Amino acid sequence: MKFNKVLENIQTYEAGKPIELVVREFGIAAKDVVKLASNENPIGTNPAIAKVIRSNADIAHLYPDDSMFELKAALSRKFNVQDNNIIIGAGSDQVIEFISRALLDENASVLMSAVTFAMYEIYAKQMGAKILRTASYTHKYDEFMEAYRMHRPKIIYLCTPNNPTGDATSKEEVLKIIDAVDSDTLVVVDGAYMEYAAAKDPQYAITPNDLLKYENVIYLGTFSKAHGLGGMRVGYGIAQAELIKELHKMRPPFNISTLSLAVAIEACKDNSFVEESIALHQEQIKRYEAFAEEQGFEYIESYTNFITYMFDETMDATKIADALLKRGVIIRNLASYGLNAMRITIGTVKQNDVFFKHFLEVIA
Amino acid sequence: MKFNKVLENIQTYEAGKPIELVVREFGIAAKDVVKLASNENPIGTNPAIAKVIRSNADIAHLYPDDSMFELKAALSRKFNVQDNNIIIGAGSDQVIEFISRALLDENASVLMSAVTFAMYEIYAKQMGAKILRTASYTHKYDEFMEAYRMHRPKIIYLCTPNNPTGDATSKEEVLKIIDAVDSDTLVVVDGAYMEYAAAKDPQYAITPNDLLKYENVIYLGTFSKAHGLGGMRVGYGIAQAELIKELHKMRPPFNISTLSLAVAIEACKDNSFVEESIALHQEQIKRYEAFAEEQGFEYIESYTNFITYMFDETMDATKIADALLKRGVIIRNLASYGLNAMRITIGTVKQNDVFFKHFLEVIA
Repeated sequence: MKFNKVLENIQTYEAGKPIELVVREFGIAAKDVVKLASNENPIGTNPAIAKVIRSNADIAHLYPDDSMFELKAALSRKFNVQDNNIIIGAGSDQVIEFISRALLDENASVLMSAVTFAMYEIYAKQMGAKILRTASYTHKYDEFMEAYRMHRPKIIYLCTPNNPTGDATSKEEVLKIIDAVDSDTLVVVDGAYMEYAAAKDPQYAITPNDLLKYENVIYLGTFSKAHGLGGMRVGYGIAQAELIKELHKMRPPFNISTLSLAVAIEACKDNSFVEESIALHQEQIKRYEAFAEEQGFEYIESYTNFITYMFDETMDATKIADALLKRGVIIRNLASYGLNAMRITIGTVKQNDVFFKHFLEVIA
Repeated sequence: MKFNKVLENIQTYEAGKPIELVVREFGIAAKDVVKLASNENPIGTNPAIAKVIRSNADIAHLYPDDSMFELKAALSRKFNVQDNNIIIGAGSDQVIEFISRALLDENASVLMSAVTFAMYEIYAKQMGAKILRTASYTHKYDEFMEAYRMHRPKIIYLCTPNNPTGDATSKEEVLKIIDAVDSDTLVVVDGAYMEYAAAKDPQYAITPNDLLKYENVIYLGTFSKAHGLGGMRVGYGIAQAELIKELHKMRPPFNISTLSLAVAIEACKDNSFVEESIALHQEQIKRYEAFAEEQGFEYIESYTNFITYMFDETMDATKIADALLKRGVIIRNLASYGLNAMRITIGTVKQNDVFFKHFLEVIA
């Protein structure tokens, strides 16, 4: 059978290794595995959310309300936008897929920073588009403008805070890029980790409403990180209604599950769990910064729920990651991003203790 | 902004109306709404499944095992295939999306029966492909062959049992079509409702294993119907490993939720709920057949969990459907398929009583 040519050029996304894999391969009990690889919320599931799941367990046979009326109403209130400004995805990465499919083809290009969320490239390649990257992983105005003027990309991705590096771009810098781009280029502001950046420094806080006056800008958010709902797969895009209407043409019906819809509605009601998550995080990340300083290696200042450790040639991220894995500690090796670095989700006090202990033994 | 040209030609899928909409629009209490529109399992959620949901409620923050190791192992055992023969979708309709994206472009065409599952056309149009339909909604060998020889479609969809009509194509007929098609055309055997057909008449039973010797055939199945998990969004495609490998390039990571993965694994363990569902169905559908005969209109003999009533010019499906909706009875009007007909999911004894009562009042 002859498949579309774009398939020749696609590598599949390597997801963070699940706990089950470590249990299977290394015979470590699930309770002893410490997973700091996928930026899941270390506190766990919000008890109010778990309650909603349990109380909806008996309606798993019913399709969700495909209009997502109630969730859109909740997000509208949360962000002070209209329901027709919102599209819901199975994770914000499904919204990236809708965007890619609505805008890209073999003649298009997509511009992003040197190291950023892997799915931008994967979805672009599925459409046969060309990938352009700036020299820096931070989002530098001059670098973006140079590439923009030369290639006129169809999409520019601004991931702030950036994943997997953890740095952020200020609202001022983001708006400067947006203002310099004409309306035939879509600027995607991916705020998957925005709650952490906004809590750390208001200069980095960007809301969907800040961007709604631009016809060619979409804000992406998710319930997967600060809200602790990674396993439920719910994210959203917020933009002007005309753009959202076009993206809906690429949305499959029932793209989130009945339970996912119910928990996302619940998550909009109360922000105290998010605040609690951020408070723990802000305290614990100091330990990771101090640890790196003590051990004498670099880290990137983080505006997210993870930290990226950068190694020089005396340390090998791949070897360290593999050794940690055998001990039941899962972190994210960034070798596949071309960095001798590792991304570690900031865990609970206990998880972080385990990480530091094993890390020291591994590098000894 | 300039969107891809294919978007001009896309209409979005009209999902069955949710209970919430009737509650909102007509002020009817949710408990009084009878929804027989989306072929959901009327028994409800399998209690063993609800238990799995409740016991997994606290891991909603964890991403699922993206390799889906355990679910593939369970399906491998269930169908006597290998794990590399399996791809998992968020509903079997996501597998249709993967197929469409891997194989179709503006020069391709897709062949299907006159009236069949709407998503075949929608996903094909998203790729700009041409839609070809046979004259009959039943799958007639001669009609398929004539169109095949003339157009050499890239994909042929055989939906058996067929949705939204309810008829089925025998295994012999399906194999006859497959044998007449060369290997550059993919034949998709969509068995979303297969459990009902297989239980009714073994001539219509097709298993994934029956088709695995063909390099250009894929079998689709789902947990949404007989397994009663419509709200959880889990389906699968089973084919030769080479084909599955290519389709995986279009699968996004974490395409089903953590809870959906857990319940699908559970659903593979025990078939008694499916058997119970089918037993209720087989008894209750007789009432719908008898009712149509008493009232003097046609129905299509059903091999699924629904029945399609066909009206002559003295009855108007749209008017009847609208009147039923205002009374809190949701069925599927097939006007958008070009039929003066309605599709009714076979419900519980009580739901069916309510349907017959209101239907009689509405047509009186």
